[in-house]
Amino acid sequence: DPPVGFGELRCKCVRTTQGIHPKHIARVEVIVAGPHCHSNEVIATLKTGNVICLNPKAPWVKKFIQKTLDNGPSL
Amino acid sequence: DPPVGFGELRCKCVRTTQGIHPKHIARVEVIVAGPHCHSNEVIATLKTGNVICLNPKAPWVKKFIQKTLDNGPSL
Repeated sequence: DPPVGFGELRCKCVRTTQGIHPKHIARVEVIVAGPHCHSNEVIATLKTGNVICLNPKAPWVKKFIQKTLDNGPSL
Repeated sequence: DPPVGFGELRCKCVRTTQGIHPKHIARVEVIVAGPHCHSNEVIATLKTGNVICLNPKAPWVKKFIQKTLDNGPSL
């Protein structure tokens, strides 16, 4: 399920999606738990434009973000 | 400088901001380099609502994301 509207004061993810290949990911958003939602949430926008929720605890999610930050050109 | 409009096909970050304390960060977005922009970009939304760009290579950025994913409750 895609996350609910942004800016709404509640959790955005109902379910997380498994088995997505990192090469399909264009953007990843890490939302810190807070008054609006007690869980940390990770929302990925795929290159297709689809938006999905990922499990913050999944090792591959951390590895993907790590690799993206480490590799590749940046400003 | 806040990043330029989202969805526009170019880099969103002109400059990165230093010296932000992680406790002020509500959300972090990692945008993978692609045809629209040759650099990886990290955009943080602060709890004040301000939006800033962070240096993807800065060790504290990686540590912040790592800690957020590791700790805290998640779905």
